[in-house]
Amino acid sequence: MSSSDGKTRTPVLIYGQHYIITGTEPSVHVKHVAELVDKKMNEIRSLNPSLDTAKLAVLTAVNALNEKVKMEERIEYLETELSRLKD
Amino acid sequence: MSSSDGKTRTPVLIYGQHYIITGTEPSVHVKHVAELVDKKMNEIRSLNPSLDTAKLAVLTAVNALNEKVKMEERIEYLETELSRLKD
Repeated sequence: MSSSDGKTRTPVLIYGQHYIITGTEPSVHVKHVAELVDKKMNEIRSLNPSLDTAKLAVLTAVNALNEKVKMEERIEYLETELSRLKD
Repeated sequence: MSSSDGKTRTPVLIYGQHYIITGTEPSVHVKHVAELVDKKMNEIRSLNPSLDTAKLAVLTAVNALNEKVKMEERIEYLETELSRLKD
């Protein structure tokens, strides 16, 4: 869904709850990300069945940010390599 | 903290709750990631003051996984560029 300010408003379902995600990304991308969050929450829950939803979501966020930090390091390495080869 | 199985068990505080994060990453890395999650949750809360902790954490996970997906695309592009330049 797209509104007049150029922002998309995408309804998604994550772990049984409805959310409207507002942003500049295309809805198809937002839906894909929402599916990844839902999947990761279910994965973490299967390893820790006693966790409540809030803790489960926090651990999912920890997991996602951990991946993000590692990728930042990988990008930095690749960009250094690229500029070295271009010189 | 490091245990005999080579896994680290790192106590962290995120959004007022204590967690023990178990994994193969060094504790200093886990603590850094936990701080990022705490910071992002507080940022999202300032934009959406009525959200409960579970929804706030879910949106934090959405935000982090969104960044991760974009970084995967960037890594793919950089790796393609690198292999092209090496040929």
